Amino acid sequence: MTLAAQSVTPRARDPKAVEAAIAALAAAFGNRLVTSLAVREQHGNTFTWIPNEPPDAVVFPQSADDVQQVVRICAAHRVPVIAFGTGTSLEGHVNAPRGGISIDMRDLNRVLAVHAEDLDCMVEPGVTRKQLNEHLRDQGLFFPIDPGADASLGGMAATRASGTNAVRYGTMKDNVLGLTAVLANGEVATTGRRAKKSSAGYDLTRLLIGSEGTLGVITSLTLKLHGIPEAIAGGHCPFPSVEAACNATIETIQSGIPVARIELLDDVQVKATNIYSKLSLPETPMLFVEFHGSPASVAEQSERFSEIAAEHGGGPFEWTTKAEDRTRLWQARHDAALACKVLRPGGQVVATDVCVPISRLAECVTETQRDIIDRSLVAPIVGHVGDGNFHVAIVVDMDDRDEIKAVEGLIERLTERALAMEGTCTGEHGIGQGKMKYLEAEHGKPALDAMRAIKRALDPDDIMNPGKIVAV
Amino acid sequence: MTLAAQSVTPRARDPKAVEAAIAALAAAFGNRLVTSLAVREQHGNTFTWIPNEPPDAVVFPQSADDVQQVVRICAAHRVPVIAFGTGTSLEGHVNAPRGGISIDMRDLNRVLAVHAEDLDCMVEPGVTRKQLNEHLRDQGLFFPIDPGADASLGGMAATRASGTNAVRYGTMKDNVLGLTAVLANGEVATTGRRAKKSSAGYDLTRLLIGSEGTLGVITSLTLKLHGIPEAIAGGHCPFPSVEAACNATIETIQSGIPVARIELLDDVQVKATNIYSKLSLPETPMLFVEFHGSPASVAEQSERFSEIAAEHGGGPFEWTTKAEDRTRLWQARHDAALACKVLRPGGQVVATDVCVPISRLAECVTETQRDIIDRSLVAPIVGHVGDGNFHVAIVVDMDDRDEIKAVEGLIERLTERALAMEGTCTGEHGIGQGKMKYLEAEHGKPALDAMRAIKRALDPDDIMNPGKIVAV
Repeated sequence: MTLAAQSVTPRARDPKAVEAAIAALAAAFGNRLVTSLAVREQHGNTFTWIPNEPPDAVVFPQSADDVQQVVRICAAHRVPVIAFGTGTSLEGHVNAPRGGISIDMRDLNRVLAVHAEDLDCMVEPGVTRKQLNEHLRDQGLFFPIDPGADASLGGMAATRASGTNAVRYGTMKDNVLGLTAVLANGEVATTGRRAKKSSAGYDLTRLLIGSEGTLGVITSLTLKLHGIPEAIAGGHCPFPSVEAACNATIETIQSGIPVARIELLDDVQVKATNIYSKLSLPETPMLFVEFHGSPASVAEQSERFSEIAAEHGGGPFEWTTKAEDRTRLWQARHDAALACKVLRPGGQVVATDVCVPISRLAECVTETQRDIIDRSLVAPIVGHVGDGNFHVAIVVDMDDRDEIKAVEGLIERLTERALAMEGTCTGEHGIGQGKMKYLEAEHGKPALDAMRAIKRALDPDDIMNPGKIVAV
Repeated sequence: MTLAAQSVTPRARDPKAVEAAIAALAAAFGNRLVTSLAVREQHGNTFTWIPNEPPDAVVFPQSADDVQQVVRICAAHRVPVIAFGTGTSLEGHVNAPRGGISIDMRDLNRVLAVHAEDLDCMVEPGVTRKQLNEHLRDQGLFFPIDPGADASLGGMAATRASGTNAVRYGTMKDNVLGLTAVLANGEVATTGRRAKKSSAGYDLTRLLIGSEGTLGVITSLTLKLHGIPEAIAGGHCPFPSVEAACNATIETIQSGIPVARIELLDDVQVKATNIYSKLSLPETPMLFVEFHGSPASVAEQSERFSEIAAEHGGGPFEWTTKAEDRTRLWQARHDAALACKVLRPGGQVVATDVCVPISRLAECVTETQRDIIDRSLVAPIVGHVGDGNFHVAIVVDMDDRDEIKAVEGLIERLTERALAMEGTCTGEHGIGQGKMKYLEAEHGKPALDAMRAIKRALDPDDIMNPGKIVAV
């Protein structure tokens, strides 16, 4: 099996250095250093079709100081370190193409402080988004970023995650006030403070967010929080075409309706979701929509959206403020990736994403659907349509070489299509190993050279998650 | 006169190199290169008490290619380049401590494209915010960032500007999708595309925003736009104390009211504003508040705010949706810095800002007021209170050395106070020359070292606005 997503091996693995680093780590961490193949394989990429490249060992630190010690030992031996959250990334981010030490943040799972008056909190990187929201609920607060998986907040920052709420609440880049990270030199940098904004120097916070562990290992995060809305209204709205759904979305946003979520499911996805989640939605392009605000405000937003939808041939928009009905709908949306499999039992789901200006979204989705049909592939589409971001979940027979080739071609054309529309090769999945080859086409050589220069300046020995984002 | 705000001169000015660069620029740009002292002085710092350090020449490019050519000529001779927008920065950002060439963006003032459906536009760096909003009005769109001065958008990006609307719409970091910049090597980097979000590699956009021209010279910006709200309601609300006003603000934000502007004026500022703007507000701490939304929504927001204010002893909240009344109020707010002077005719206004977690704001403002009174200084306070950001506008007799010393002490204590409260030494004015000395106290050595490493990596000859932010 050949894959479009190749890993890059800029420097060879140095077995003696690895051995020495492992010996030093074993002395420091005892049985919190694990070298069994099973555990190592669990810490390479397991979530997608990108081949598993396990690290040489996995260490389970219990504090930020532990993380610093791991990095210092690895830096002394010039051995790679790969931060590991929940392993739910999609582009091979946690693979170890040059070997090295995986730092599993499982035990760094404390909520360190919640400042309700300031709407912020400080957490360790292994805290997951659901864990944080459980912790916050009693105080009427929540953290809005929801990439689907119950990912760790450190991993979400490292990959600049977003998801269904991003149209209203932004992405991780908008919801992290600051963080601490161990740099390649073993020093702990603090970027940003608890002030809501600052003009004090280079924005290292935003530089580390989305750097996928290639510039530093995050050891704590200060996050923005939001009050749980007084009222939430949501529902689903069928449309005659993807174009009509996209145009209704554009008009909704243009008219200033502060929609909290607006998600497109194409007809294929609706079919899969109906089967998997036992719903009976009309099998036509569909928007799932949610509004946050006061009771009067969410009712007004719902009515106005309903009118806009009708103008574009959509509707009826069936909405409710009842939690149980909304939950059922959004659970179905979250299960979209699982639902795909019912269309082809035994298949593996290969998920990819792009993001384009919203005016081009209908065209981009429609052309992609045509490409899918032309190649007889099974590939439902769901989209964070308010942001112009959509996912194609291709259900693949991994034993069929021709089909794999067709899928690779589909992803390549999809990416080229998005770039030609002034979009990006990934709205939220990240670069990892899988999308490195598109980075120059997206950014151009001068910007890519600048990224490389930054990487070399902050990590001259290339020990921080090497072979991801940029090859140096 | 000694000043707290010292410039740093990391490398000496090289007169021969400057001469050669000017000769090359003169050959390329003819009379668009100006070396008269008057023009050069206009392009050093003129807006604040930081001494004027004029460049050796000023060039007026008419295109991005011209800017690239200027940088290439200067790079070849290792001569500094300093981008110049409207010269309204407050911390000596446009000064030329090592000489060099000021690049005045006056003629790069075209709005290159407006994409109404995508709510974005592309502009040259010399376009000012008012010019852009004039251009957009007919399409029902606006750009929300409003730092007071009619600054250039390039300058606003370079200094990570924000202002009164930031509590709802964010700062420049949240409203720039991407930009192009000439780097020190003479290459033009494009950072970011028109997609609303991306996870594709390092966030060079955010790295350049707030870098104050020390990493690159911005030649175009892609900006997020917003629909002009259907309805705007606003008004003023007196409070018995700064603390009461701050607590009402905290509760307003916590309860999810999407306030668009919420500005604190202390009693001294209200007095100055009453005189300057011919108003008759009660001379007590005051919030100016504005809400954006549908007519029903702004009425609901206004009523709810009114209730919250009353709970904290504030009110009556007098609000209106009439444009002329609102304009009068916000014009008075914008004229706050001018109004200060009526308290002490002939004095020079020295403006400084800090930003703290909102729970500490009342304490920070109150302690600062006490410090002002103890030293018999004249210094009204206005604040973007929703963000915890406030300004002290000290009206100084520049001939009184003792008073200047007292003012320097006030600013130093204010900054230390903000840092001790987990805040930042500047919420929106930037570092420039004036606040370099606080940067290590704010960020710590490892983060500052990382900033220096980035600066050296991207600008090894230190030609990009040297002596600002970090000394290398």
